[in-house]
Amino acid sequence: MSEPLAITLFSGTDDRLGAAAVLVAGAAAMGRPVHLFLQYWALDAFRADRIDRDHGVAPEAGTGGAEAMRRLHDAGGATWVETLRQAKEIGDVEIQACSLSMDLLEIGPEELDPLVDGVEGVAAFWMAAERGQVLFI
Amino acid sequence: MSEPLAITLFSGTDDRLGAAAVLVAGAAAMGRPVHLFLQYWALDAFRADRIDRDHGVAPEAGTGGAEAMRRLHDAGGATWVETLRQAKEIGDVEIQACSLSMDLLEIGPEELDPLVDGVEGVAAFWMAAERGQVLFI
Amino acid sequence: MSEPLAITLFSGTDDRLGAAAVLVAGAAAMGRPVHLFLQYWALDAFRADRIDRDHGVAPEAGTGGAEAMRRLHDAGGATWVETLRQAKEIGDVEIQACSLSMDLLEIGPEELDPLVDGVEGVAAFWMAAERGQVLFI
Repeated sequence: MSEPLAITLFSGTDDRLGAAAVLVAGAAAMGRPVHLFLQYWALDAFRADRIDRDHGVAPEAGTGGAEAMRRLHDAGGATWVETLRQAKEIGDVEIQACSLSMDLLEIGPEELDPLVDGVEGVAAFWMAAERGQVLFI
Repeated sequence: MSEPLAITLFSGTDDRLGAAAVLVAGAAAMGRPVHLFLQYWALDAFRADRIDRDHGVAPEAGTGGAEAMRRLHDAGGATWVETLRQAKEIGDVEIQACSLSMDLLEIGPEELDPLVDGVEGVAAFWMAAERGQVLFI
Repeated sequence: MSEPLAITLFSGTDDRLGAAAVLVAGAAAMGRPVHLFLQYWALDAFRADRIDRDHGVAPEAGTGGAEAMRRLHDAGGATWVETLRQAKEIGDVEIQACSLSMDLLEIGPEELDPLVDGVEGVAAFWMAAERGQVLFI
Protein backbone atom coordinates (compact mmCIF):
# COMPACT_ATOMS: atom_id res chain seq x y z
CA MET A 1 0.00 0.00 0.00
CA SER A 2 2.76 2.49 -0.75
CA GLU A 3 1.15 3.84 -3.93
CA PRO A 4 1.40 7.63 -3.87
CA LEU A 5 -1.74 9.76 -3.70
CA ALA A 6 -1.82 13.26 -5.19
CA ILE A 7 -4.70 15.65 -4.61
CA THR A 8 -5.48 18.98 -6.22
CA LEU A 9 -7.42 20.89 -3.56
CA PHE A 10 -9.51 23.54 -5.29
CA SER A 11 -12.47 24.11 -2.95
CA GLY A 12 -12.24 26.13 0.22
CA THR A 13 -15.44 25.29 2.09
CA ASP A 14 -15.31 23.41 5.39
CA ASP A 15 -17.35 20.47 4.10
CA ARG A 16 -15.11 19.72 1.09
CA LEU A 17 -11.93 20.38 3.07
CA GLY A 18 -13.32 18.05 5.77
CA ALA A 19 -13.87 15.25 3.27
CA ALA A 20 -10.39 15.83 1.82
CA ALA A 21 -8.74 15.78 5.25
CA VAL A 22 -10.34 12.44 6.14
CA LEU A 23 -9.24 10.88 2.84
CA VAL A 24 -5.70 12.21 3.33
CA ALA A 25 -5.47 11.04 6.95
CA GLY A 26 -6.73 7.58 6.01
CA ALA A 27 -4.22 7.21 3.18
CA ALA A 28 -1.34 8.56 5.30
CA ALA A 29 -2.18 6.14 8.14
CA MET A 30 -1.84 3.30 5.65
CA GLY A 31 1.69 4.37 4.79
CA ARG A 32 0.95 6.10 1.51
CA PRO A 33 2.84 9.28 0.59
CA VAL A 34 0.31 12.07 -0.01
CA HIS A 35 0.96 15.25 -2.02
CA LEU A 36 -1.52 18.14 -1.83
CA PHE A 37 -1.58 20.98 -4.37
CA LEU A 38 -3.58 24.06 -3.24
CA GLN A 39 -5.38 26.03 -5.94
CA TYR A 40 -7.84 28.93 -5.89
CA TRP A 41 -10.23 28.92 -2.89
CA ALA A 42 -8.48 26.08 -1.09
CA LEU A 43 -5.26 28.10 -1.19
CA ASP A 44 -7.18 31.09 0.18
CA ALA A 45 -8.38 28.94 3.09
CA PHE A 46 -4.75 28.14 4.04
CA ARG A 47 -3.79 31.80 4.72
CA ALA A 48 -2.38 31.98 8.25
CA ASP A 49 -4.93 34.58 9.31
CA ARG A 50 -7.92 32.70 7.88
CA ILE A 51 -7.21 29.00 8.34
CA ASP A 52 -9.04 28.75 11.68
CA ARG A 53 -12.07 30.76 10.56
CA ASP A 54 -15.46 29.44 9.51
CA HIS A 55 -15.18 28.85 5.73
CA GLY A 56 -18.85 28.05 5.16
CA VAL A 57 -20.25 25.03 3.37
CA ALA A 58 -21.43 24.35 -0.18
CA PRO A 59 -24.90 25.80 -0.94
CA GLU A 60 -26.28 22.27 -1.37
CA ALA A 61 -25.68 21.60 2.35
CA GLY A 62 -28.86 23.53 3.07
CA THR A 63 -29.93 24.48 6.57
CA GLY A 64 -29.76 20.91 7.86
CA GLY A 65 -26.24 20.38 6.60
CA ALA A 66 -24.93 23.65 7.98
CA GLU A 67 -26.48 22.78 11.36
CA ALA A 68 -24.85 19.34 11.33
CA MET A 69 -21.46 20.96 10.74
CA ARG A 70 -22.02 23.40 13.60
CA ARG A 71 -23.16 20.59 15.92
CA LEU A 72 -19.93 18.68 15.15
CA HIS A 73 -17.89 21.79 15.86
CA ASP A 74 -19.67 22.52 19.15
CA ALA A 75 -19.18 18.91 20.24
CA GLY A 76 -15.42 19.38 19.86
CA GLY A 77 -15.08 17.31 16.68
CA ALA A 78 -11.74 17.63 14.92
CA THR A 79 -11.64 20.33 12.26
CA TRP A 80 -10.04 19.66 8.88
CA VAL A 81 -7.05 21.73 10.02
CA GLU A 82 -6.49 19.47 13.04
CA THR A 83 -7.02 16.32 10.95
CA LEU A 84 -4.44 17.47 8.38
CA ARG A 85 -1.99 18.44 11.15
CA GLN A 86 -2.31 14.95 12.65
CA ALA A 87 -1.91 13.37 9.21
CA LYS A 88 1.37 15.26 8.75
CA GLU A 89 2.56 14.05 12.17
CA ILE A 90 1.87 10.37 11.56
CA GLY A 91 2.59 10.13 7.84
CA ASP A 92 4.32 11.46 4.77
CA VAL A 93 2.03 14.36 3.78
CA GLU A 94 3.33 17.29 1.75
CA ILE A 95 1.28 20.44 1.11
CA GLN A 96 2.31 22.75 -1.74
CA ALA A 97 0.68 25.99 -2.90
CA CYS A 98 0.10 26.48 -6.64
CA SER A 99 2.29 29.36 -7.83
CA LEU A 100 -0.28 30.58 -10.37
CA SER A 101 -3.00 30.73 -7.70
CA MET A 102 -0.58 32.62 -5.42
CA ASP A 103 -0.28 35.26 -8.17
CA LEU A 104 -4.03 35.30 -8.85
CA LEU A 105 -4.92 35.89 -5.22
CA GLU A 106 -1.85 38.09 -4.59
CA ILE A 107 -0.66 35.99 -1.67
CA GLY A 108 2.96 36.01 -0.50
CA PRO A 109 4.60 32.82 0.92
CA GLU A 110 4.89 34.50 4.34
CA GLU A 111 1.09 34.80 4.50
CA LEU A 112 0.55 31.03 4.40
CA ASP A 113 -0.07 28.83 7.42
CA PRO A 114 2.97 26.73 8.48
CA LEU A 115 1.01 23.62 7.41
CA VAL A 116 1.99 24.60 3.85
CA ASP A 117 5.46 23.28 2.96
CA GLY A 118 6.16 25.47 -0.05
CA VAL A 119 5.10 26.84 -3.42
CA GLU A 120 5.35 24.90 -6.69
CA GLY A 121 4.24 25.05 -10.31
CA VAL A 122 1.94 22.64 -12.10
CA ALA A 123 4.88 20.73 -13.65
CA ALA A 124 6.21 19.94 -10.16
CA PHE A 125 2.73 18.76 -9.16
CA TRP A 126 2.53 16.36 -12.09
CA MET A 127 6.03 15.07 -11.30
CA ALA A 128 4.89 14.34 -7.73
CA ALA A 129 1.67 12.75 -8.99
CA GLU A 130 3.53 10.38 -11.31
CA ARG A 131 2.30 6.82 -11.40
CA GLY A 132 -0.05 7.17 -8.42
CA GLN A 133 -3.71 7.91 -7.86
CA VAL A 134 -4.89 11.48 -8.28
CA LEU A 135 -8.01 13.35 -7.08
CA PHE A 136 -9.48 16.81 -7.73
CA ILE A 137 -11.50 18.07 -4.75
CA MET B 1 -10.82 -3.74 -18.86
CA SER B 2 -11.18 -5.18 -15.39
CA GLU B 3 -9.32 -2.36 -13.63
CA PRO B 4 -11.31 -1.41 -10.52
CA LEU B 5 -12.92 2.03 -10.24
CA ALA B 6 -13.47 3.69 -6.85
CA ILE B 7 -15.53 6.85 -6.44
CA THR B 8 -15.97 9.10 -3.44
CA LEU B 9 -19.42 10.61 -3.90
CA PHE B 10 -19.57 13.87 -1.95
CA SER B 11 -22.16 15.98 -3.77
CA GLY B 12 -25.88 15.42 -3.41
CA THR B 13 -27.38 17.45 -6.26
CA ASP B 14 -29.19 15.71 -9.11
CA ASP B 15 -26.79 16.99 -11.78
CA ARG B 16 -23.61 15.69 -10.13
CA LEU B 17 -25.28 12.44 -9.08
CA GLY B 18 -26.53 12.09 -12.68
CA ALA B 19 -23.01 12.49 -14.07
CA ALA B 20 -21.70 10.00 -11.50
CA ALA B 21 -24.41 7.44 -12.29
CA VAL B 22 -23.61 7.54 -16.02
CA LEU B 23 -19.88 7.08 -15.38
CA VAL B 24 -20.60 4.18 -12.99
CA ALA B 25 -23.04 2.47 -15.39
CA GLY B 26 -20.58 2.80 -18.27
CA ALA B 27 -17.70 1.31 -16.29
CA ALA B 28 -19.89 -1.50 -14.88
CA ALA B 29 -21.14 -2.40 -18.38
CA MET B 30 -17.52 -2.83 -19.42
CA GLY B 31 -16.96 -5.38 -16.67
CA ARG B 32 -15.15 -3.14 -14.22
CA PRO B 33 -15.81 -3.54 -10.49
CA VAL B 34 -17.02 -0.21 -9.09
CA HIS B 35 -16.89 0.84 -5.45
CA LEU B 36 -18.83 3.92 -4.29
CA PHE B 37 -18.15 5.67 -0.97
CA LEU B 38 -20.91 8.07 0.14
CA GLN B 39 -19.85 11.16 2.09
CA TYR B 40 -21.67 14.27 3.31
CA TRP B 41 -24.46 15.48 1.00
CA ALA B 42 -24.33 12.44 -1.29
CA LEU B 43 -24.94 10.25 1.76
CA ASP B 44 -27.85 12.48 2.72
CA ALA B 45 -29.36 11.97 -0.75
CA PHE B 46 -29.35 8.16 -0.23
CA ARG B 47 -31.69 8.26 2.79
CA ALA B 48 -34.64 5.97 2.02
CA ASP B 49 -37.17 8.75 2.56
CA ARG B 50 -35.30 11.27 0.39
CA ILE B 51 -33.70 9.32 -2.46
CA ASP B 52 -36.61 9.85 -4.87
CA ARG B 53 -37.04 13.54 -4.09
CA ASP B 54 -35.83 16.49 -6.15
CA HIS B 55 -32.28 17.21 -4.89
CA GLY B 56 -31.79 20.41 -6.86
CA VAL B 57 -28.87 21.27 -9.09
CA ALA B 58 -25.63 23.21 -8.63
CA PRO B 59 -26.11 27.01 -8.64
CA GLU B 60 -24.08 27.25 -11.87
CA ALA B 61 -26.83 25.36 -13.73
CA GLY B 62 -28.80 28.60 -13.88
CA THR B 63 -32.37 28.78 -15.07
CA GLY B 64 -31.60 27.10 -18.41
CA GLY B 65 -29.86 24.15 -16.77
CA ALA B 66 -32.58 23.60 -14.20
CA GLU B 67 -35.17 23.66 -16.99
CA ALA B 68 -33.19 21.10 -19.02
CA MET B 69 -33.15 18.77 -16.01
CA ARG B 70 -36.90 19.17 -15.54
CA ARG B 71 -37.55 18.56 -19.25
CA LEU B 72 -35.53 15.31 -19.05
CA HIS B 73 -37.52 14.26 -16.01
CA ASP B 74 -40.90 15.05 -17.60
CA ALA B 75 -39.89 13.12 -20.74
CA GLY B 76 -39.41 10.02 -18.58
CA GLY B 77 -35.61 10.06 -18.71
CA ALA B 78 -33.89 7.70 -16.27
CA THR B 79 -33.03 9.32 -12.93
CA TRP B 80 -29.63 8.71 -11.34
CA VAL B 81 -31.35 6.34 -8.89
CA GLU B 82 -32.67 4.18 -11.73
CA THR B 83 -29.33 4.30 -13.57
CA LEU B 84 -27.46 3.16 -10.44
CA ARG B 85 -30.03 0.41 -9.82
CA GLN B 86 -29.53 -0.89 -13.37
CA ALA B 87 -25.76 -0.67 -12.98
CA LYS B 88 -25.99 -2.85 -9.86
CA GLU B 89 -28.12 -5.39 -11.77
CA ILE B 90 -25.78 -5.74 -14.74
CA GLY B 91 -22.42 -5.29 -13.04
CA ASP B 92 -20.31 -5.46 -9.92
CA VAL B 93 -21.23 -2.20 -8.17
CA GLU B 94 -20.88 -1.80 -4.41
CA ILE B 95 -22.19 1.23 -2.52
CA GLN B 96 -20.87 1.93 0.98
CA ALA B 97 -21.74 4.77 3.36
CA CYS B 98 -18.88 6.61 5.10
CA SER B 99 -19.12 5.93 8.84
CA LEU B 100 -17.87 9.42 9.79
CA SER B 101 -20.52 11.06 7.60
CA MET B 102 -23.17 8.79 9.16
CA ASP B 103 -22.16 10.22 12.56
CA LEU B 104 -22.01 13.80 11.28
CA LEU B 105 -25.51 13.66 9.82
CA GLU B 106 -26.84 11.43 12.63
CA ILE B 107 -28.11 8.78 10.21
CA GLY B 108 -28.70 5.17 11.29
CA PRO B 109 -28.08 2.26 8.85
CA GLU B 110 -31.82 1.49 8.83
CA GLU B 111 -32.54 4.93 7.37
CA LEU B 112 -30.55 4.24 4.19
CA ASP B 113 -32.06 3.14 0.88
CA PRO B 114 -31.52 -0.57 0.06
CA LEU B 115 -29.21 0.52 -2.80
CA VAL B 116 -26.59 1.07 -0.07
CA ASP B 117 -24.78 -2.18 0.75
CA GLY B 118 -23.28 -1.18 4.08
CA VAL B 119 -21.24 1.25 6.16
CA GLU B 120 -17.44 1.42 6.13
CA GLY B 121 -14.55 3.59 7.33
CA VAL B 122 -12.05 5.43 5.19
CA ALA B 123 -9.43 2.68 5.58
CA ALA B 124 -11.83 0.16 4.03
CA PHE B 125 -12.45 2.59 1.18
CA TRP B 126 -8.74 2.92 0.44
CA MET B 127 -8.35 -0.88 0.58
CA ALA B 128 -11.12 -1.20 -2.02
CA ALA B 129 -9.59 1.58 -4.14
CA GLU B 130 -6.20 -0.12 -4.21
CA ARG B 131 -4.40 -0.08 -7.55
CA GLY B 132 -7.38 1.19 -9.55
CA GLN B 133 -8.64 4.52 -10.78
CA VAL B 134 -10.27 6.84 -8.27
CA LEU B 135 -12.60 9.85 -8.62
CA PHE B 136 -14.00 12.47 -6.25
CA ILE B 137 -17.41 13.75 -7.38
CA MET C 1 5.94 10.60 -18.39
CA SER C 2 3.68 9.37 -21.18
CA GLU C 3 0.94 8.08 -18.87
CA PRO C 4 -2.41 9.19 -20.32
CA LEU C 5 -4.61 11.62 -18.39
CA ALA C 6 -8.40 11.59 -18.78
CA ILE C 7 -10.60 14.31 -17.32
CA THR C 8 -14.37 14.49 -16.99
CA LEU C 9 -15.13 18.20 -17.08
CA PHE C 10 -18.48 18.77 -15.41
CA SER C 11 -18.33 22.33 -14.05
CA GLY C 12 -18.76 25.38 -16.26
CA THR C 13 -17.55 28.24 -14.07
CA ASP C 14 -14.44 30.19 -15.01
CA ASP C 15 -12.58 29.30 -11.82
CA ARG C 16 -12.95 25.51 -12.19
CA LEU C 17 -12.34 25.65 -15.94
CA GLY C 18 -9.25 27.77 -15.22
CA ALA C 19 -7.88 25.18 -12.79
CA ALA C 20 -8.63 22.42 -15.30
CA ALA C 21 -6.92 24.27 -18.17
CA VAL C 22 -3.73 24.74 -16.15
CA LEU C 23 -3.62 21.06 -15.17
CA VAL C 24 -4.22 20.04 -18.82
CA ALA C 25 -1.58 22.42 -20.19
CA GLY C 26 0.97 21.23 -17.65
CA ALA C 27 0.37 17.56 -18.44
CA ALA C 28 0.39 18.19 -22.21
CA ALA C 29 3.67 20.11 -21.97
CA MET C 30 5.20 17.04 -20.30
CA GLY C 31 4.25 14.88 -23.27
CA ARG C 32 1.20 13.22 -21.76
CA PRO C 33 -1.82 12.52 -23.97
CA VAL C 34 -4.87 14.23 -22.43
CA HIS C 35 -8.49 13.31 -23.10
CA LEU C 36 -11.28 15.66 -21.98
CA PHE C 37 -14.93 14.58 -21.73
CA LEU C 38 -17.41 17.48 -21.48
CA GLN C 39 -20.55 16.89 -19.40
CA TYR C 40 -23.38 19.14 -18.23
CA TRP C 41 -22.36 22.75 -17.49
CA ALA C 42 -18.85 22.37 -18.87
CA LEU C 43 -20.36 21.27 -22.18
CA ASP C 44 -22.66 24.29 -22.07
CA ALA C 45 -19.61 26.56 -21.64
CA PHE C 46 -18.08 25.17 -24.88
CA ARG C 47 -20.97 26.37 -27.11
CA ALA C 48 -19.44 28.52 -29.87
CA ASP C 49 -21.62 31.49 -28.97
CA ARG C 50 -20.88 31.30 -25.23
CA ILE C 51 -17.27 30.13 -24.88
CA ASP C 52 -15.82 33.66 -24.68
CA ARG C 53 -18.44 34.97 -22.26
CA ASP C 54 -18.09 35.47 -18.52
CA HIS C 55 -19.15 32.13 -16.96
CA GLY C 56 -19.06 33.33 -13.36
CA VAL C 57 -17.31 31.67 -10.45
CA ALA C 58 -18.34 29.23 -7.72
CA PRO C 59 -20.36 30.88 -4.91
CA GLU C 60 -17.53 30.12 -2.46
CA ALA C 61 -15.26 32.58 -4.35
CA GLY C 62 -17.05 35.39 -2.57
CA THR C 63 -16.51 39.05 -3.44
CA GLY C 64 -12.74 38.86 -3.02
CA GLY C 65 -12.42 35.86 -5.32
CA ALA C 66 -14.62 37.32 -8.03
CA GLU C 67 -12.54 40.52 -7.90
CA ALA C 68 -9.29 38.56 -8.21
CA MET C 69 -10.63 36.85 -11.34
CA ARG C 70 -11.65 40.20 -12.83
CA ARG C 71 -8.25 41.72 -11.99
CA LEU C 72 -6.52 38.84 -13.80
CA HIS C 73 -8.78 39.35 -16.79
CA ASP C 74 -8.22 43.11 -16.91
CA ALA C 75 -4.46 42.57 -16.68
CA GLY C 76 -4.63 40.48 -19.87
CA GLY C 77 -4.10 37.12 -18.14
CA ALA C 78 -4.76 34.09 -20.34
CA THR C 79 -8.32 32.79 -20.12
CA TRP C 80 -8.98 29.04 -19.80
CA VAL C 81 -10.02 29.08 -23.47
CA GLU C 82 -6.64 30.46 -24.54
CA THR C 83 -4.78 28.09 -22.24
CA LEU C 84 -6.62 25.08 -23.68
CA ARG C 85 -6.01 26.30 -27.24
CA GLN C 86 -2.28 26.56 -26.53
CA ALA C 87 -2.30 23.12 -24.90
CA LYS C 88 -3.84 21.66 -28.07
CA GLU C 89 -1.14 23.35 -30.17
CA ILE C 90 1.81 22.07 -28.17
CA GLY C 91 0.52 18.68 -27.12
CA ASP C 92 -1.81 15.76 -27.67
CA VAL C 93 -5.09 17.08 -26.22
CA GLU C 94 -8.44 15.71 -27.37
CA ILE C 95 -11.77 17.28 -26.33
CA GLN C 96 -14.96 15.22 -26.70
CA ALA C 97 -18.54 16.17 -25.84
CA CYS C 98 -20.64 13.65 -23.89
CA SER C 99 -23.49 12.49 -26.13
CA LEU C 100 -25.96 12.19 -23.24
CA SER C 101 -25.26 15.75 -22.12
CA MET C 102 -25.69 16.92 -25.75
CA ASP C 103 -29.21 15.42 -25.63
CA LEU C 104 -29.96 16.82 -22.17
CA LEU C 105 -29.04 20.37 -23.16
CA GLU C 106 -30.40 19.97 -26.71
CA ILE C 107 -27.12 21.01 -28.32
CA GLY C 108 -26.24 20.06 -31.91
CA PRO C 109 -22.59 19.34 -32.92
CA GLU C 110 -22.60 22.44 -35.14
CA GLU C 111 -23.22 24.62 -32.09
CA LEU C 112 -19.94 23.62 -30.41
CA ASP C 113 -16.73 25.66 -30.51
CA PRO C 114 -14.05 24.25 -32.87
CA LEU C 115 -11.94 23.43 -29.79
CA VAL C 116 -14.24 20.40 -29.40
CA ASP C 117 -13.05 17.48 -31.56
CA GLY C 118 -16.24 15.43 -31.54
CA VAL C 119 -19.03 13.74 -29.61
CA GLU C 120 -18.67 10.39 -27.83
CA GLY C 121 -20.49 8.13 -25.39
CA VAL C 122 -19.36 7.12 -21.92
CA ALA C 123 -17.97 3.78 -23.16
CA ALA C 124 -15.62 5.62 -25.53
CA PHE C 125 -14.53 7.83 -22.64
CA TRP C 126 -13.66 4.85 -20.47
CA MET C 127 -11.76 3.24 -23.36
CA ALA C 128 -9.71 6.44 -23.71
CA ALA C 129 -9.18 6.61 -19.94
CA GLU C 130 -7.86 3.05 -19.79
CA ARG C 131 -4.86 2.48 -17.56
CA GLY C 132 -4.13 6.18 -16.98
CA GLN C 133 -4.96 8.74 -14.35
CA VAL C 134 -8.47 10.17 -14.27
CA LEU C 135 -9.97 13.33 -12.74
CA PHE C 136 -13.51 14.68 -12.27
CA ILE C 137 -13.59 18.48 -12.23
